[in-house]
Amino acid sequence: MYTFEHQAQYYETDQMGIIHHSNYIRWFESARIGFMDYMGVSYVSMEEAGIASPVLNVSCEYKTMTRFGDTVLVIPKIKEYNGIIMELSYEVIDKYTEEVRALGSSKHCFLNSKGRPISLERDSKEFHQAFIADMK
Amino acid sequence: MYTFEHQAQYYETDQMGIIHHSNYIRWFESARIGFMDYMGVSYVSMEEAGIASPVLNVSCEYKTMTRFGDTVLVIPKIKEYNGIIMELSYEVIDKYTEEVRALGSSKHCFLNSKGRPISLERDSKEFHQAFIADMK
Amino acid sequence: MYTFEHQAQYYETDQMGIIHHSNYIRWFESARIGFMDYMGVSYVSMEEAGIASPVLNVSCEYKTMTRFGDTVLVIPKIKEYNGIIMELSYEVIDKYTEEVRALGSSKHCFLNSKGRPISLERDSKEFHQAFIADMK
Amino acid sequence: MYTFEHQAQYYETDQMGIIHHSNYIRWFESARIGFMDYMGVSYVSMEEAGIASPVLNVSCEYKTMTRFGDTVLVIPKIKEYNGIIMELSYEVIDKYTEEVRALGSSKHCFLNSKGRPISLERDSKEFHQAFIADMK
Repeated sequence: MYTFEHQAQYYETDQMGIIHHSNYIRWFESARIGFMDYMGVSYVSMEEAGIASPVLNVSCEYKTMTRFGDTVLVIPKIKEYNGIIMELSYEVIDKYTEEVRALGSSKHCFLNSKGRPISLERDSKEFHQAFIADMK
Repeated sequence: MYTFEHQAQYYETDQMGIIHHSNYIRWFESARIGFMDYMGVSYVSMEEAGIASPVLNVSCEYKTMTRFGDTVLVIPKIKEYNGIIMELSYEVIDKYTEEVRALGSSKHCFLNSKGRPISLERDSKEFHQAFIADMK
Repeated sequence: MYTFEHQAQYYETDQMGIIHHSNYIRWFESARIGFMDYMGVSYVSMEEAGIASPVLNVSCEYKTMTRFGDTVLVIPKIKEYNGIIMELSYEVIDKYTEEVRALGSSKHCFLNSKGRPISLERDSKEFHQAFIADMK
Repeated sequence: MYTFEHQAQYYETDQMGIIHHSNYIRWFESARIGFMDYMGVSYVSMEEAGIASPVLNVSCEYKTMTRFGDTVLVIPKIKEYNGIIMELSYEVIDKYTEEVRALGSSKHCFLNSKGRPISLERDSKEFHQAFIADMK
């Protein structure tokens, strides 16, 4: 199972003394990109192939606070994938206590270099196979 | 009606050539805080009164892309408020074309200086009245 | 005189209870870009003309702390410009008290679409004239 | 020798297709804090002891561009320390090619919980000894 490990940085804190909630959305992205690498679909190679994967929506439910110096693990999973749309879920847990910090999700489509939606199944079989393989 | 105006900054762009999606979550916060000021409940005065208002969840649906130099308006509204929980919705539109950029929401509770959930209705009538007044 | 006005945002704070120092570097950029607009050299039009203006160096001396909700003015000035290199200074002051928050500088060159350094004086007279005009 | 390793994130890019220059200032902070941990002076324990260490100035000279996916090493060093002021230098290099990405510096003082400058040599011998030990 792929996990993205991140140490919460001072510059991610806010004056409430906790990690600012917007950073979790960034951690989701890092976990998503690391997860794609892990599946053999590097984001760099996708962009080089002229494919963009914009975010259609994102959500995050904050369970407990993360503080400066904490190490979190973000566990991304493919919830749904049909060649056209991919939806991921994310679980953020403390590395040591395994306490759940947050649960999230994001949904993505795929665009070609002209900004038109494409089906990876039809237009980019290599990436498609990698995503399908992970879901089995 | 309160609107938060923001000019999309270069440092908010990413290499896709658009504003990075995480920034919308930050704009929601700016709009929320500006909206509270507008209602007579400044965030500074809340923090001085020992009340924190952490984010329980946040979501954003991205409709169209915002680009560097665009000016957006964020329109926050109270969707639900019962003294204990407040839920807001956000509409992000282009200032000039009025095209919808994104729709979002966030949910908040209120904590006292010991980190315990409180009811504003019971513990902080002044803030409570201001929120209630806006919903009428 | 051009000034860039900015209200310090909650998401810019850190757990020291002040605006995180890295944000001033971003404000310098906003002020620089706004200043260029003011001189008739929009950054968008420069990028459209295939010219990038990367940062060669940046520095900031922090004098007093900026806090959430404060409004600052950033006053950019061209310190040096010779067609190849541009150096700017920045003064960050509180809008109301005029107390100096920070002093900074940044140095830039100009690159064509192939990433090669160019002289604006030779390759892009329109932008060159605008910068020269400001220095008089 | 302590080095801070960082993989450049997508959310750190800008529309020039490179890592936005403001992030280096944040990496300096991460390297500084990691370096302090390494010396046995954790930033958390300093803040718990009521000592803040604000940034008096920061500078960065950008040599070559960092791109999304690159792994950089940040090498912090104490340039000067006298109990009252600490100055650090930073070298940012590519982990694999060792090409220099940037050189930087930052200067710090130490404040007690009332915001007054203090001498670590006088007021906090433990932290002082750790910094002195590193300089030998």
